[in-house]
Amino acid sequence: MSDDLLELGRRAQAARRLTSQLSSEAKDAALRASADLLDSRRDQVLEANGTDMERAERAGTSASVLDRLRLTPSRVEAMAEGLRQVAALGDPIGEAVEGWVRPNGLEIRKVRVPLGVIGIIYENRPNVTSDAAALCLKSGNVAFLRGSSAAITSNQAVASVLRAGYAKAGVPEDALLLIEDTSRESAVEFMRMRGVIDCLIPRGGRSLIDAVIASATVPTIIDGDGNCHVYVDRAADLDSAVAIVANGKTQRPSVCNATESLLVHAEVADRFLPAVVAALDGVELRGDAAARRVVGRARMGEATDEDFSTEHLALILSVAVVPDISAAIDHIGRHGSGHTEVIVTADLAAARRFQREVDAAAVVVNASTRFTDGEQFGFGAEIGISTQKLHARGPMGLRELTTTKYLVTGEGHIRP
Amino acid sequence: MSDDLLELGRRAQAARRLTSQLSSEAKDAALRASADLLDSRRDQVLEANGTDMERAERAGTSASVLDRLRLTPSRVEAMAEGLRQVAALGDPIGEAVEGWVRPNGLEIRKVRVPLGVIGIIYENRPNVTSDAAALCLKSGNVAFLRGSSAAITSNQAVASVLRAGYAKAGVPEDALLLIEDTSRESAVEFMRMRGVIDCLIPRGGRSLIDAVIASATVPTIIDGDGNCHVYVDRAADLDSAVAIVANGKTQRPSVCNATESLLVHAEVADRFLPAVVAALDGVELRGDAAARRVVGRARMGEATDEDFSTEHLALILSVAVVPDISAAIDHIGRHGSGHTEVIVTADLAAARRFQREVDAAAVVVNASTRFTDGEQFGFGAEIGISTQKLHARGPMGLRELTTTKYLVTGEGHIRP
Repeated sequence: MSDDLLELGRRAQAARRLTSQLSSEAKDAALRASADLLDSRRDQVLEANGTDMERAERAGTSASVLDRLRLTPSRVEAMAEGLRQVAALGDPIGEAVEGWVRPNGLEIRKVRVPLGVIGIIYENRPNVTSDAAALCLKSGNVAFLRGSSAAITSNQAVASVLRAGYAKAGVPEDALLLIEDTSRESAVEFMRMRGVIDCLIPRGGRSLIDAVIASATVPTIIDGDGNCHVYVDRAADLDSAVAIVANGKTQRPSVCNATESLLVHAEVADRFLPAVVAALDGVELRGDAAARRVVGRARMGEATDEDFSTEHLALILSVAVVPDISAAIDHIGRHGSGHTEVIVTADLAAARRFQREVDAAAVVVNASTRFTDGEQFGFGAEIGISTQKLHARGPMGLRELTTTKYLVTGEGHIRP
Repeated sequence: MSDDLLELGRRAQAARRLTSQLSSEAKDAALRASADLLDSRRDQVLEANGTDMERAERAGTSASVLDRLRLTPSRVEAMAEGLRQVAALGDPIGEAVEGWVRPNGLEIRKVRVPLGVIGIIYENRPNVTSDAAALCLKSGNVAFLRGSSAAITSNQAVASVLRAGYAKAGVPEDALLLIEDTSRESAVEFMRMRGVIDCLIPRGGRSLIDAVIASATVPTIIDGDGNCHVYVDRAADLDSAVAIVANGKTQRPSVCNATESLLVHAEVADRFLPAVVAALDGVELRGDAAARRVVGRARMGEATDEDFSTEHLALILSVAVVPDISAAIDHIGRHGSGHTEVIVTADLAAARRFQREVDAAAVVVNASTRFTDGEQFGFGAEIGISTQKLHARGPMGLRELTTTKYLVTGEGHIRP
């Protein structure tokens, strides 16, 4: 392992205990001081970002990547506002999750404590630096961050502003550590820092996730794909179903809780499909044979099996007609990614069965896929949406960045 | 991947949905039917075990391994009793963990559901086959088991009895799948069955754990070392401290919650150490210079740094004298494995500080390390004790074999 990374690991370890013991007051003061500094040093941050942007433009980076990399005055303002919002949230640390007394009088309490050091590996958005740092600090964790090489100057600037804010509030600066060596080798070393990183969260596309799955030896939480379905049952309110599909597909197509696939009960396909197609102007439709018969081959291309398994993150919708709810549940079991699955129905038995049998982080009745989100769930902020089943499943807020410990109290108890 | 393993993976996948939907009644009936069959087919199981024992004896296997491998009539009886005990526990599935309504009227409930397929890789004890299968079934999971080659005939016999019991109760036999290819290659392939195994739990020694950490790509829960400390504070009731140390060290030295290391506040070392040494007859003591000065070099050998970091699992105790509670907490931070750490004290401030600052699955005041155990905690049964921080930390019962999903219900809600 490189000396730099080893040294950062040592600092993370050293900062962990102090950070875990911080009062809510101290953490909130640090976040607010950092927000104020982000405001007052906005020009410095924008200048640093200019360096990254220039280098990226010279390298012929695509427009969409440039957009993610770019900071503007209002984006930096939003970062500062984000810090203040996290400061205003409740502190998850110290919550007594449960407690009981054993027949022998031994008292057991389970309390919420920080994980310790949270590693986050992410791509080009410099705002992740401040968002992730804020959530980690609020939950009493050291944020050990590894952004992309393209964003390194921006990330350094943001991190140095936050660290200065922490110092002002008497919080260890090393509660935020940014890796400056953005080589591929250091990324792999980072994923293997067992004993230093308590939890690694990758935030990025498929190739990053795959690299983490292949290389990480530290515990990870995977913020995975969302191949989200809407199943329109025969007992659906069809107007409502049109609105839900259109909202899920078009309101923000590039995010993981966008709708990717539509399943329609055969009994309502003739009525529903023309209505929904009319509401999906500008959306490329790829359907199975039955759907194409209703919609017409001109408006709807042919869907391959691959289409049904793909998270397009674009204005593309795959469509299938299913004979019944069993077939819909089977289709979702085969093609879904375990993110968000919706049924539109007025039939209680269908709703209950769908929610019971579909295996996903969020199983939704009569609402858009777009609600699977920390903000929409009321968590105030989110670090991502877990599609794995261990530790956290679905939107992850502050609580998902914690663990628990058992506090056991006796009066000289020994085991007979 | 070998065809056998692929085929078993397909069967696990197929059985998962059915198993997750079983009623408590069906699961409990299957466990009781299996217990009855274990009783009535005891001789078959013992005969199969005889084959394993003979082979192991011919291979010159050590006495301690032979003891773990050996089944006796009373051990098979205990396995059946274990199945009945799990049947009598409450079913964790379906529990509403929490629920709330958003300002827009969207209802959100978080409910407990099975993980899906739980992989368990274990060493020589054939009783793990029935214990693990029972806990997995009760929590609605498919048990996908991989035991050792030495125990394969016993494991096959036990698994076939349980599968017959399941079938009798109308539960899918494939809720229990045993891998019969016990080669090293198949173990590694097993650890990499992403998309099939939702959670892998290794049950065994350090080399098995290390292999899982190095090779697994599926999510894991590590049931790790217990290098457990008892810190005797200056405000300790010394009689009670002697009893706690003696109990922790000698009551069952071979298990992970045994006491491995003793830290004594300098102010009480002169009084406490002679008393505890007198109670530790037959225990090899390895101490630092200060402890040896009090106890005498004849009775106490020299402890190396390695001794302080080792889980001996034997009648060996490392001993250090510390100047204050801070030094005790530091020592534990450096050498502990995050399992169970005990303070003996009558001082409220010391107790609170120790419980707050020590980072371990269980932080205990005035009780033996031996209480960190699913049975002792009141869970009824345990699948292991997690020393990792993600998902489960400390004793793991049925609840730790579950995940949650969000059930979201709207009335045509779309995002503005």
